[in-house]
Amino acid sequence: MKKILPALLVAASAALLAAPASAQFAKSEDAIKYRQGALFVMSQHFGRLGAMANGKAPFDAKVAQENAAVLETMVKLPWAAFGDGTEGGKAKPEVWKEKAKFTEHADKFQAESAKLVAAAKTGDLAQLKNAFGPAAQSCKACHDAFRNR
Amino acid sequence: MKKILPALLVAASAALLAAPASAQFAKSEDAIKYRQGALFVMSQHFGRLGAMANGKAPFDAKVAQENAAVLETMVKLPWAAFGDGTEGGKAKPEVWKEKAKFTEHADKFQAESAKLVAAAKTGDLAQLKNAFGPAAQSCKACHDAFRNR
Repeated sequence: MKKILPALLVAASAALLAAPASAQFAKSEDAIKYRQGALFVMSQHFGRLGAMANGKAPFDAKVAQENAAVLETMVKLPWAAFGDGTEGGKAKPEVWKEKAKFTEHADKFQAESAKLVAAAKTGDLAQLKNAFGPAAQSCKACHDAFRNR
Repeated sequence: MKKILPALLVAASAALLAAPASAQFAKSEDAIKYRQGALFVMSQHFGRLGAMANGKAPFDAKVAQENAAVLETMVKLPWAAFGDGTEGGKAKPEVWKEKAKFTEHADKFQAESAKLVAAAKTGDLAQLKNAFGPAAQSCKACHDAFRNR
């Protein structure tokens, strides 16, 4: 028994840590606020890279690299805040009804963003231009399918 | 003249890039939304470190390190969104009236957070506990002085 109890506690802790991501938030409003905040911050840095890629802002390699570094962190964050029981905000019910499709879109966006981050980090405008389009397209595809206007 | 014009254009571009941080936002509402989003996302990761530091959540070195990595990026973000002309949201007018004091608080918070991030990255709970208090205190000090309830 002395040996079993610690083992059970370890198992219980592991289960707690492996709890659904939604459990990271005290209430569903926090999850909604978190994902909206993370997506908005992300969109600003994404947009600054886009402005340079599209010639609407002067290209500056250092600024591109700084925005890419922030984007690299931000693209990982919103998804854990779409857990079960956190329906609402601008998210369509399809996020939860078609989870596999939503995850596929989110994964595609993250993959394209990783390419954009890598391109921006090279400091080469041509590479930034090449990578921006597909990344922006993957934003839009997910918004069209899963976000209310 | 042929030589002066490009030089002027370079100077103009440099001035544009050195424009106040508020100019990074298309409108002041965007700056407010950005800083509120960044601060909220930050607070969630900060709070998860706090829960472990205070024994309200089981300590897991990997989870602490993951939250610290996000915090490291997030602590840099909100400040550029408090530029001139972006008054509003929960921010008191003192943010703009007492800029030096606000910057001092923001710098103090960032310095304490850097220590918290470093402590969390060691994977040592004792270090996390030591660093959390001063970091949390620096959040509160800034909120007390500069945020409306």
